[in-house]
Amino acid sequence: MPFALVGIEVTSSGSVLERSLDLIGVVVFGASGALLAVRKGFDIVGMLVLAVLTATGGGVIRDLLIGAVPPAALTDPWYLLLPVVATAAVFFLHPWFDHIRRPVLVFDAAGLALYCVIGAVKALSFGIRPIAAIGLGVTAAVGGGIIRDVLAREVPTVFRQDTTLYAVPAFLGSAATVGAWQTHTYGPPAAVVTAIVVFVIRLLSLRYGWRAPSPRPGRAGRSADE
Amino acid sequence: MPFALVGIEVTSSGSVLERSLDLIGVVVFGASGALLAVRKGFDIVGMLVLAVLTATGGGVIRDLLIGAVPPAALTDPWYLLLPVVATAAVFFLHPWFDHIRRPVLVFDAAGLALYCVIGAVKALSFGIRPIAAIGLGVTAAVGGGIIRDVLAREVPTVFRQDTTLYAVPAFLGSAATVGAWQTHTYGPPAAVVTAIVVFVIRLLSLRYGWRAPSPRPGRAGRSADE
Amino acid sequence: MPFALVGIEVTSSGSVLERSLDLIGVVVFGASGALLAVRKGFDIVGMLVLAVLTATGGGVIRDLLIGAVPPAALTDPWYLLLPVVATAAVFFLHPWFDHIRRPVLVFDAAGLALYCVIGAVKALSFGIRPIAAIGLGVTAAVGGGIIRDVLAREVPTVFRQDTTLYAVPAFLGSAATVGAWQTHTYGPPAAVVTAIVVFVIRLLSLRYGWRAPSPRPGRAGRSADE
Repeated sequence: MPFALVGIEVTSSGSVLERSLDLIGVVVFGASGALLAVRKGFDIVGMLVLAVLTATGGGVIRDLLIGAVPPAALTDPWYLLLPVVATAAVFFLHPWFDHIRRPVLVFDAAGLALYCVIGAVKALSFGIRPIAAIGLGVTAAVGGGIIRDVLAREVPTVFRQDTTLYAVPAFLGSAATVGAWQTHTYGPPAAVVTAIVVFVIRLLSLRYGWRAPSPRPGRAGRSADE
Repeated sequence: MPFALVGIEVTSSGSVLERSLDLIGVVVFGASGALLAVRKGFDIVGMLVLAVLTATGGGVIRDLLIGAVPPAALTDPWYLLLPVVATAAVFFLHPWFDHIRRPVLVFDAAGLALYCVIGAVKALSFGIRPIAAIGLGVTAAVGGGIIRDVLAREVPTVFRQDTTLYAVPAFLGSAATVGAWQTHTYGPPAAVVTAIVVFVIRLLSLRYGWRAPSPRPGRAGRSADE
Repeated sequence: MPFALVGIEVTSSGSVLERSLDLIGVVVFGASGALLAVRKGFDIVGMLVLAVLTATGGGVIRDLLIGAVPPAALTDPWYLLLPVVATAAVFFLHPWFDHIRRPVLVFDAAGLALYCVIGAVKALSFGIRPIAAIGLGVTAAVGGGIIRDVLAREVPTVFRQDTTLYAVPAFLGSAATVGAWQTHTYGPPAAVVTAIVVFVIRLLSLRYGWRAPSPRPGRAGRSADE
């Protein structure tokens, strides 16, 4: 049953919804990679690499760590084809994407919500312990974006003090999923409710500018050798 | 038979050629990592790490993704020893490398040509699907260089608009290899012809300054949170 | 017997010491990640990610490469919990860490010493060849720090000419461990002596400013396409 959520079986209508959201997440994350490549002045190769790694990087790291090899990104052709399609769209239409930033952010929030739930469930179904499974859910949701930013020589967006909550709702969704699993209340209803809550928290963060806590500035943390 | 190409069996004269080109690729890619370290002002540790990761990084990622663990870089001592030798040469002789840039580029093109064919074949022989195998061939060929550039805090060379075709010939070679495999025409002749074509395209790109397409500049792609 | 060293069995008093040093290493490496995040102006998410990856990244890469999946960082909850604790401490107390730089450096040296020995032994016990096992011991010891620096957009500390010996003592300790293993003299005494020697070399490097060799500056290493 949980495997339906990770895309290995698509039989019920609930799974069709999940599958659709999953693939929308792939498109949107892929487009975010291609758009950053445009902004950085990269060529089509840079756009493609960033699109594929943003869309699949978090899931690939999760799969390597839990031993799900080859990772889903290599066994499901859509995980590679959709970022290519997103890259083609961005290549020709990128000035137009400024006009659709709001819908893109909404789809991105949907992808985030689904990736953290799917990521945690897949880790649990491979026998990973609860605490690590929470971390892997977050990794699946935000790992691709961190890889994108590192390859583009940007400070990872999720680390920045001036960005709204992103990893935090992913953490909450991942933790709630693991909690439901541990208490044997996990199932399609719990998954859907969790994903919706994550989605809403992310949208509220964007709307109201919620930010994660930051330490007071200081001179600490100097490199050991300075 | 295809395994001869991935270095597991070396029996025929064709395989000896492949093995030689493979190891030349390791030396040249290793030297490119060590040279970048010199240019960035790194010490011997930085030179060694960049040399080893440039020479082996693409293949290691491919092997992890297809489940070929431990990766070839750990089972074949030459994959570690040759980058060390290349580092030693660069350490003492690096000013002299400016005078041999042209032969280095030719060997690099040979390494690129062989790595993409080997990479795709190894992925296919591990049961990876065609589209993913194309991607893994490209990964094996250009992944090490991307790791090198990221560790040295450079924009990955293959992403830059002002660099000549590099990932594109690797993609063509990888795709041709997969096509031959799918149509049961893959074998030493197909591999050699494919590698030669990739090699020639790369050299022509250098000669005539061929570049990959780039999107029109624009302001799109602003970070979601700006 | 060697497995005691890698934390799978903790039965003897020697193993309790190793286990303690191992977990102290996790705390100290985690704190170094969190402190760098503070210095770079990251939020709590950046602190947590850097803390976890600095503490576990080197070991995770080693485990993925040798096929020890899921890696120890996912099966032992302390590997995730202690970096979280270290992050919490740094979050509230980071100005105070400037006053304890010296003890932190001593603990860091202890972690380095233990990680390189443990890393090499674990690789050997998974059947990895000697030369590769040396590399994996070094990877386990310095890999987390390199990941930390790359994510924070810093030149990796171990690559810099102005930093004291760090990877070199890890290399010596890893090589000595592999040598002892190959000559069947490896055991708790050899492990302890090796770790102590690495620890002392690292402290002497800090005390006397020992540095790794660097190549003469030059203009070599220009990117192939310039």
